[in-house]
Amino acid sequence: MKVRFFCLGFTLVWLAVGCAGIHGLNLWPMPKSVSHGGQTLYMSKDFGLRYEGSNYTDASGILKDGFARLLDGVEADHVADYNSTHFDHSVLLQGLNVIISSFNDQLQFGVDESYKLSIAATGNPRYVYLEAQTVYGALHGLQTFSQLCHFDFTTRMVEVHQIPFTIIDTPRFSYRGLLIDTARHYQSLPMIKNVIDAMAYSKLNVLHWHIVDSQSFPLEIPSYPKLWNGAFSPSERYTMADAAEIVQYAQRRGINVLAEIDVPGHALSWGTGYPSLWPSRDCQQPLDVSNEFTFKVIDGILSDFRKVFEFRFVHLGGDEVNTSCWSTTAHVNKWLREHHLNESEAYQYFVLRAQNIALSHGYEIVNWEETFNNFGSKLSPKTVVHNWLGRGVAQQVVGKGLRCIVSNQDKWYLDHLDTTWQDFYMNEPLTNITYPTQQKLVIGGEVCMWGEHVDGSDLEQTIWPRAAAAAERLWTPYENLATDPKKVTGRLAHFRCLLNQRGIAAAPLAGPGRVAPDEPGSCYKQ
Amino acid sequence: MKVRFFCLGFTLVWLAVGCAGIHGLNLWPMPKSVSHGGQTLYMSKDFGLRYEGSNYTDASGILKDGFARLLDGVEADHVADYNSTHFDHSVLLQGLNVIISSFNDQLQFGVDESYKLSIAATGNPRYVYLEAQTVYGALHGLQTFSQLCHFDFTTRMVEVHQIPFTIIDTPRFSYRGLLIDTARHYQSLPMIKNVIDAMAYSKLNVLHWHIVDSQSFPLEIPSYPKLWNGAFSPSERYTMADAAEIVQYAQRRGINVLAEIDVPGHALSWGTGYPSLWPSRDCQQPLDVSNEFTFKVIDGILSDFRKVFEFRFVHLGGDEVNTSCWSTTAHVNKWLREHHLNESEAYQYFVLRAQNIALSHGYEIVNWEETFNNFGSKLSPKTVVHNWLGRGVAQQVVGKGLRCIVSNQDKWYLDHLDTTWQDFYMNEPLTNITYPTQQKLVIGGEVCMWGEHVDGSDLEQTIWPRAAAAAERLWTPYENLATDPKKVTGRLAHFRCLLNQRGIAAAPLAGPGRVAPDEPGSCYKQ
Repeated sequence: MKVRFFCLGFTLVWLAVGCAGIHGLNLWPMPKSVSHGGQTLYMSKDFGLRYEGSNYTDASGILKDGFARLLDGVEADHVADYNSTHFDHSVLLQGLNVIISSFNDQLQFGVDESYKLSIAATGNPRYVYLEAQTVYGALHGLQTFSQLCHFDFTTRMVEVHQIPFTIIDTPRFSYRGLLIDTARHYQSLPMIKNVIDAMAYSKLNVLHWHIVDSQSFPLEIPSYPKLWNGAFSPSERYTMADAAEIVQYAQRRGINVLAEIDVPGHALSWGTGYPSLWPSRDCQQPLDVSNEFTFKVIDGILSDFRKVFEFRFVHLGGDEVNTSCWSTTAHVNKWLREHHLNESEAYQYFVLRAQNIALSHGYEIVNWEETFNNFGSKLSPKTVVHNWLGRGVAQQVVGKGLRCIVSNQDKWYLDHLDTTWQDFYMNEPLTNITYPTQQKLVIGGEVCMWGEHVDGSDLEQTIWPRAAAAAERLWTPYENLATDPKKVTGRLAHFRCLLNQRGIAAAPLAGPGRVAPDEPGSCYKQ
Repeated sequence: MKVRFFCLGFTLVWLAVGCAGIHGLNLWPMPKSVSHGGQTLYMSKDFGLRYEGSNYTDASGILKDGFARLLDGVEADHVADYNSTHFDHSVLLQGLNVIISSFNDQLQFGVDESYKLSIAATGNPRYVYLEAQTVYGALHGLQTFSQLCHFDFTTRMVEVHQIPFTIIDTPRFSYRGLLIDTARHYQSLPMIKNVIDAMAYSKLNVLHWHIVDSQSFPLEIPSYPKLWNGAFSPSERYTMADAAEIVQYAQRRGINVLAEIDVPGHALSWGTGYPSLWPSRDCQQPLDVSNEFTFKVIDGILSDFRKVFEFRFVHLGGDEVNTSCWSTTAHVNKWLREHHLNESEAYQYFVLRAQNIALSHGYEIVNWEETFNNFGSKLSPKTVVHNWLGRGVAQQVVGKGLRCIVSNQDKWYLDHLDTTWQDFYMNEPLTNITYPTQQKLVIGGEVCMWGEHVDGSDLEQTIWPRAAAAAERLWTPYENLATDPKKVTGRLAHFRCLLNQRGIAAAPLAGPGRVAPDEPGSCYKQ
């Protein structure tokens, strides 16, 4: 696949000058296959959306909105001037013809995300063709197309080069996640929406929302309305309508929201509203395993979740559980003895009972890897084990026939500022997993933006561009991935500058995470 | 002025509960005078804009757009639900009645920015009243009103409390600036627009655009089209249409754009396109004082500027000029001798000639303080001296009858990360200036965001909230300013959280500039 630069023999010299400034094929993440020529065409003033041959009617406007964002995006950084009369009609792209096979626009895990994007060598009028099984594949195609559009400083129009081209694309993994944490710091809706926007640019497709934790409980739970008494402050809260807004905003961009309640540890804030959820006022976590009310509350939360969080999975946490309060609190200790359970058996009891509640609400479950490490054979077969502690866990999980999401903290934790984008890029989820049946059980991976030191002021630059480096690992066919990250530095730098041009505060590539630029210079070299 | 909390005797208990969560009077910057009660009203579903009694017709839609932004802003962070039928009509605010005296909506230095904002104790239907001399005063009133609107988690509506109230407000200084530097790093249009948005929130009113410098020349100059060959890269450039877009975007928010070319130093990048502007290829700055072409280019630039940058002032720089190249380059040295000028006389000659060119294009001039320090008595009386080196300069400048802008680097340089918001807040432009006639010559102050270590990834959190601390110093009457910054910490923290809620990445108050939050916790306490 070579990037060729040549210009059509335009009679107008100033068009040829425009050609000299074109970029290489700077797509991120790299598609499955690309073939292209070197013509340049220009988006016409009324570049439009057409559905000729499509089954999809776009009743909900998902595609129309995606197309409007495409136009906004390619015109955001420069004022285009479409009044030129110098153009031969034949160098203008009249629009985008989208052909979608499926009527269905329900977004769910495993939805077909493939697409084919092409512009023919000839035609009059000239159209871009985008074919996809689903509207969500088409949205990915729009993102790819947006990266092929460049403002041309000579014509003052938006140009598309490397024509004719055909791009055929489909993701390697179905689950390509990013975790945000609104418990250590509240994140406002506009901030979360900015994260979702940039996820769409990078073709990530799951926002794992670690909503609550020990420090705060910002979400409204209608069934147990005192839970959000555990918020940091009255205004640092989300109503269920806010949560629904986030889910819908994400869905319309092809992104599912995975909601998490992390039990039985990481739940101290629950007791602010309902102190009986604590073993005692002096020993406040994990949640009181001996109290039926604990499981009633979990049931209430998941019942409320089901109305808003439509993803197939719910995340039940299960990590870092220090069970000592259970033994040292008299009434819990008594319960343990009555039920012939030691602390670790009670931990298992808790996790499995929570799993059953989730199953009863129609969810499949994601649990952090400690649950697997401690009692993997007892977990529901509908469990997806979320690796985080170390590498090599996915191998064990799929060896036991369970599904796995890879987030090993040494490479895919965004709060580890010393983990570079090269580390993110090179982290391979299928390391040492060779059987195709086992490979299929690794549904994907996720980068985690834990919020201890991240609020609205540093969220974006801590996430980007490192999350995008992982996004290519999760999207692009293995054989197209670089074996040496140096080979993609320029292309990733280009994507980071594109994020900046779109108003996303992605950080320089040189250095650790969230680093300020070292010296004056071009975005493309920093 | 005391903040009182009490609720109207609503018959509905859940309204009274809503009252319990109200905030204090967290306005930033603090208005000139505020008197208020403690009623709470709710914005109705179709809260509208009315012009009853206004002379202003809003033909250009400035007010209408400002009102739309008000509604977008107050609803950005939560999904409001206006379907409640529980409300007595009398607790609903039906809209905002704006009364503007002046037909004229031309924005210029010294435009009347005052406004009066009030809600009466009674009335049916209930309206907010906003009175102003100009639409730009009215825009400030809308910003103030937006800070009085809060999402109420009980009713799920937007509430306004402390009713009845009357706010009378006018700025202390006419010039309240923020410098951005697009020469050390390119900043995309969306990023610059985000800065302008937050300037409007803080009532800053001049964007000082340090466009070009030694490192790069990103702006198109139609008269000398090779100048932007000095850009970092082909795509890191602004067309004149882009510049016009920035100017218009700012103007419609009541913000003037002060364009700068910094001559004769800080101009190395000019020679990339026109090498004859350098003394020689080996000695590239300052601009060649001996070359008539140098002044032709300056004339061409300012001629092009005049079509886009409509502010009364242009900034001609003049700082940090190392003139040694002039002596060491043969042809320049020869010219110096022929004209009987030493290096420093030639520096004066250059600056004054550039001033005359600016005057010929109808601009008044801003120059950095070195010009005043070296030959203050020779400067055009239309000069505004821009202090930056140290304190005490303003005093000397106004003593000589010239106008001054205060930006002393020890307190108002945002790139000095160790300068805290408290330093920014306490920096008084009128220090040691006691005569009213001299005080009037200090037209205001400016905080400077030099771009050596600031690109799209860290621009916002380096500027905010420290620039807002200075904004209150520049807006609020001296007698209303806190003498101890501790007294405004909570109110500024509230404003920084408001910025986060509106998608602006303002940094925590605790610690130096651009610091990450130290630990989990509420935005209001960090």
